[in-house]
Amino acid sequence: MKTFHVDGQLGRSSIHVGESINNLEKYLPTDQVVIVTDENINRHYGKAFPDVPVITIGLGEKIKTLSTVESIQRKLIHYSCDRSGFIVGIGGGLVCDITGFAASTFLRGVDFGFVSTSLLSQVDASVGGKNGVNLDAYKNMVGVFNQPDFVICDIDLLKTLPDAEISNGLAEIVKHGLIKDAAMFDFIESNKEKALKLDYHTIFRLVADSVKIKSQVVQQDEKEAGERRKLNFGHTIGHAIEKIEQAGHGRAVSVGMVAAALFSEEKGFISHDEVLRIKGLLTDLNLPVSLDYNSAAIIKAAGKDKKKTGTDLFYVFLEEIGRARVEKISMKEMNEFILSIFK
Amino acid sequence: MKTFHVDGQLGRSSIHVGESINNLEKYLPTDQVVIVTDENINRHYGKAFPDVPVITIGLGEKIKTLSTVESIQRKLIHYSCDRSGFIVGIGGGLVCDITGFAASTFLRGVDFGFVSTSLLSQVDASVGGKNGVNLDAYKNMVGVFNQPDFVICDIDLLKTLPDAEISNGLAEIVKHGLIKDAAMFDFIESNKEKALKLDYHTIFRLVADSVKIKSQVVQQDEKEAGERRKLNFGHTIGHAIEKIEQAGHGRAVSVGMVAAALFSEEKGFISHDEVLRIKGLLTDLNLPVSLDYNSAAIIKAAGKDKKKTGTDLFYVFLEEIGRARVEKISMKEMNEFILSIFK
Repeated sequence: MKTFHVDGQLGRSSIHVGESINNLEKYLPTDQVVIVTDENINRHYGKAFPDVPVITIGLGEKIKTLSTVESIQRKLIHYSCDRSGFIVGIGGGLVCDITGFAASTFLRGVDFGFVSTSLLSQVDASVGGKNGVNLDAYKNMVGVFNQPDFVICDIDLLKTLPDAEISNGLAEIVKHGLIKDAAMFDFIESNKEKALKLDYHTIFRLVADSVKIKSQVVQQDEKEAGERRKLNFGHTIGHAIEKIEQAGHGRAVSVGMVAAALFSEEKGFISHDEVLRIKGLLTDLNLPVSLDYNSAAIIKAAGKDKKKTGTDLFYVFLEEIGRARVEKISMKEMNEFILSIFK
Repeated sequence: MKTFHVDGQLGRSSIHVGESINNLEKYLPTDQVVIVTDENINRHYGKAFPDVPVITIGLGEKIKTLSTVESIQRKLIHYSCDRSGFIVGIGGGLVCDITGFAASTFLRGVDFGFVSTSLLSQVDASVGGKNGVNLDAYKNMVGVFNQPDFVICDIDLLKTLPDAEISNGLAEIVKHGLIKDAAMFDFIESNKEKALKLDYHTIFRLVADSVKIKSQVVQQDEKEAGERRKLNFGHTIGHAIEKIEQAGHGRAVSVGMVAAALFSEEKGFISHDEVLRIKGLLTDLNLPVSLDYNSAAIIKAAGKDKKKTGTDLFYVFLEEIGRARVEKISMKEMNEFILSIFK
């Protein structure tokens, strides 16, 4: 097991990579605990839960709403949860995002922790204190920054994931290599078969490296005013694609990273060979790289991006594999680029 | 004009007592501003608003819901409000509570300020960074702590308030004297007629004294882990009464303060003469002091109080007029007291 910390203005968060859900109880600061999970996780792993009330939510992005938050909070009242209570979200990014927001706003804030059960949430959603829900078609428009007390990343829980979910998580892992760690990118290239087969040591290293990178970045810039923007590499166009075609987050970010790599090439930052190397690895990880999307639809969807300020936005480029660079560009420049590469 | 500050972990808040809504524009940090207000305020004072988009919400406690927050946020998207935007809530406590929560959770937090238009909100709701909405019958169950950049308390706006609203505000003013400032309590006793008639200098002093007390307490203890609990004097039973009979907040707190004064007498902290003096002043301010409520209903409603932790709660007693004392008591002890004084 490896443990990483985020010591933020908003509190300390400890992320335990390789810990088991069977040890959850020892991280609970009180016996007044309520678990929030989804139907699938409850069926697969409910037997491993401590003996406390369990709130089960539905599946799929469509339930990531304020109305689900309200239904969780109504049950917290029913279970007489007060300010001394503790909420544990057990699930993927969706469960963790919703649970973190429900806990952060219940009675103006109750402490919470996560057991992260998907590869994507272990390397991304559960670390960093972002939480919240969607508003209509707009992703994560409503939320707060607030750190969980702990996150348990139990590698053994990944076994029940479908293959597409493994690839989704690998997209964010590749992103961490691209923006911060060339050696990590090399390692993924050399171990892609093992990664896809969920070889324990390979996945353990990739999750640990990702959590290390993400926790360091978040520690520096909890509220995304500078360094943290780099974690949005591939996400401006990625989020637009995710909205247009309801693709999995990692799959949409894969296409977004290809677009951002091409944009970086156009700016003269990286070579065409590097773009091809990035596309090659994503393809080998069963992630989409095709730009066969309608440019007008992407422009419309990207126009509501959270990273926009006025008529400009912060866009993340690559200077080389392993190093990112944030530049403020105009929406106009981005839109022209989108028109030039999408159909 | 007098200005007070709260320099909290969550940012600096400046409260300007005696400032005019006509000067609002000079406090706005950007031109990308959206106003949130209610139908009444828009009708009375809409002409004084700067020329920016205005979102109007309905009236009454029943609209203090997550659904109203969602409808505000949907309009913020419509007006292309992004992270560089600024939201101004113009209204009473209800508008300020909802606006603060909508801004604090939109895009994980957009800056905001208030123009406080009711006496109750000038002396209570707008200062201190508490915001949020109700959940079913439970008041303020959902929210966050987050300071507004500024609060403008324009005394002239109080002229359009109904008499009952003046009394509601005076209840919280009396509370501030009771817990922190005996001279202020004396001043209210000596100037009660003027206060009820909204004499400018009397009200200016009472609002300024209240804001001074509240901002000092909040500065010491932003998240209510100690000193701030004193501001809950009269509120445990007050909130229960507010829930049972949909009384105005100040009217319910008036009854709650009478109960808390009697509880303080029973504990041997204050004399019966002091209890009578408190009841006398509240009565003269047209506030209710009768304990003609069903004790079982109060016990049930108070059982869901946010200040409860486990089987205990923090209850605020008076040691004398002008000095409060917080004690952790059991729910059982409080319930027995409620049974002894209510019918």
